[in-house]
Amino acid sequence: MEYVWLDDKMIKRRDAKISFDDRGYYFGDGIYEVIRIYESKPFLWKEHMERFSRSAKEMDLSLPYSPEETETIVTDLIHRNNLQDGFVYFQVTRGIQPRDHLYTRDLKPVLTAFTREAEVPVQNQKNGIHLWVLEDIRWLRCDIKTINLLGNIMAKRKAEDNSCQEALQHREGVITEGSSSNIFFVKDGTLYTHPANHYILNGITRQHVVHLANARHIPVEEKAFTLQEASEADEIFITSTVQEIIPVTELKGEMEASFSPGPITRELQDDFRQSVQK
Amino acid sequence: MEYVWLDDKMIKRRDAKISFDDRGYYFGDGIYEVIRIYESKPFLWKEHMERFSRSAKEMDLSLPYSPEETETIVTDLIHRNNLQDGFVYFQVTRGIQPRDHLYTRDLKPVLTAFTREAEVPVQNQKNGIHLWVLEDIRWLRCDIKTINLLGNIMAKRKAEDNSCQEALQHREGVITEGSSSNIFFVKDGTLYTHPANHYILNGITRQHVVHLANARHIPVEEKAFTLQEASEADEIFITSTVQEIIPVTELKGEMEASFSPGPITRELQDDFRQSVQK
Repeated sequence: MEYVWLDDKMIKRRDAKISFDDRGYYFGDGIYEVIRIYESKPFLWKEHMERFSRSAKEMDLSLPYSPEETETIVTDLIHRNNLQDGFVYFQVTRGIQPRDHLYTRDLKPVLTAFTREAEVPVQNQKNGIHLWVLEDIRWLRCDIKTINLLGNIMAKRKAEDNSCQEALQHREGVITEGSSSNIFFVKDGTLYTHPANHYILNGITRQHVVHLANARHIPVEEKAFTLQEASEADEIFITSTVQEIIPVTELKGEMEASFSPGPITRELQDDFRQSVQK
Repeated sequence: MEYVWLDDKMIKRRDAKISFDDRGYYFGDGIYEVIRIYESKPFLWKEHMERFSRSAKEMDLSLPYSPEETETIVTDLIHRNNLQDGFVYFQVTRGIQPRDHLYTRDLKPVLTAFTREAEVPVQNQKNGIHLWVLEDIRWLRCDIKTINLLGNIMAKRKAEDNSCQEALQHREGVITEGSSSNIFFVKDGTLYTHPANHYILNGITRQHVVHLANARHIPVEEKAFTLQEASEADEIFITSTVQEIIPVTELKGEMEASFSPGPITRELQDDFRQSVQK
């Protein structure tokens, strides 16, 4: 029996139904987080909750629970579903209101949460994946982790339709990020990634990798790469909560280039594993 | 007793609940239409359905019903709810799937629909409204009528917070549209509105107004206006399905300018009323 959280309580998944007038369903008016669970424990919980809180603030959305209450809910859900390794997903929508672009500030926000088992994608981490390069058509507040994800899902579908495992988006030739991942480039021993501004989501795994690189004294620069610079990179990898660190072996679509998983990628993967085991 | 459409049937509104795993709720993965009902009859039905079909195509989304079946559903809903004057809202989401950015193409799309009474906003049509001018931060496919509407609702909220009834969005000084309306400018007897490209939603009322202007031999140019040009306009009005044609009397925020409802606005309002009565 699988349980989910909805409407202030833990319920069986098959009984979970959303209100017809939830603003999440009319407008995608909500935010979310995905947190990795290793051996039944959330990884980088505090960092995810800080981002969640920031997303809410930027959206003028009040959260229904304190971080501590949210942690209790998530912990209960992990135990109830007997989750060992996987992730917890939770979102908060602004609440229930007869459909109107103009939201009122007295709504009761709706938190929903579920868990899912997910293995570490060992093969992809070892062998790498292919990225489909295409234009980034998303809005200008990609720094907020909202459920308005159409641009992302259209990019992901195009990648899959072209036998790639992920998309790589660019704005006028400047690479931003994947459809559900951040991107890193290695060139002459330095690690590069897009600055954490309104063009990308500041991934928690992205931040963790920067931290691991700093600890190893690998120089890190927050600098956007052009398609041209990407083609000349020594190593490329993506990061995401569920996939961790995955080398990129091919860029396809608007540009074509091949890469091999390199030494800095491997070192960071090792460090990541160790940080999880701690 | 109010009825809505959900899951292939007409049901009481209080019984209407959405699936937990509806992609509309996870991603805003859907499209919608709002159609005006005058004296229990849909206005410009064919035009709305053509746009709906186009939105679906651009989203790689298959519609669950033919236009004829959709018309039957909407007609039944209007009669069941005894709606005289108002609108019908309907949306189609891609379907129900365990959360994954990557959608599969075998999903059964979900159509939901409701009706609402709405009077013609006579006072605003007579006296005009104020617009709050701000940056357009939305994605680059505003031509698709999707439920990813966060940019729009944030703009609407900012307008209201500044005592304006609607927002006016611009990209680097070039005016695009309102948060839920199109915009027209009159200058030296010519009517201007933004070209129907990927920066705006091609409103059905917008198209109807262009048609009415043509019939009156008012010159129409599909040309974007800058903020500077807007400040020098002779008349400004917005159009929307529910509000029809509303003069703009103030622009506030990033620019300030005042206008009076002018003769071309009044003529088009009269023509609009007559076309409804036919």
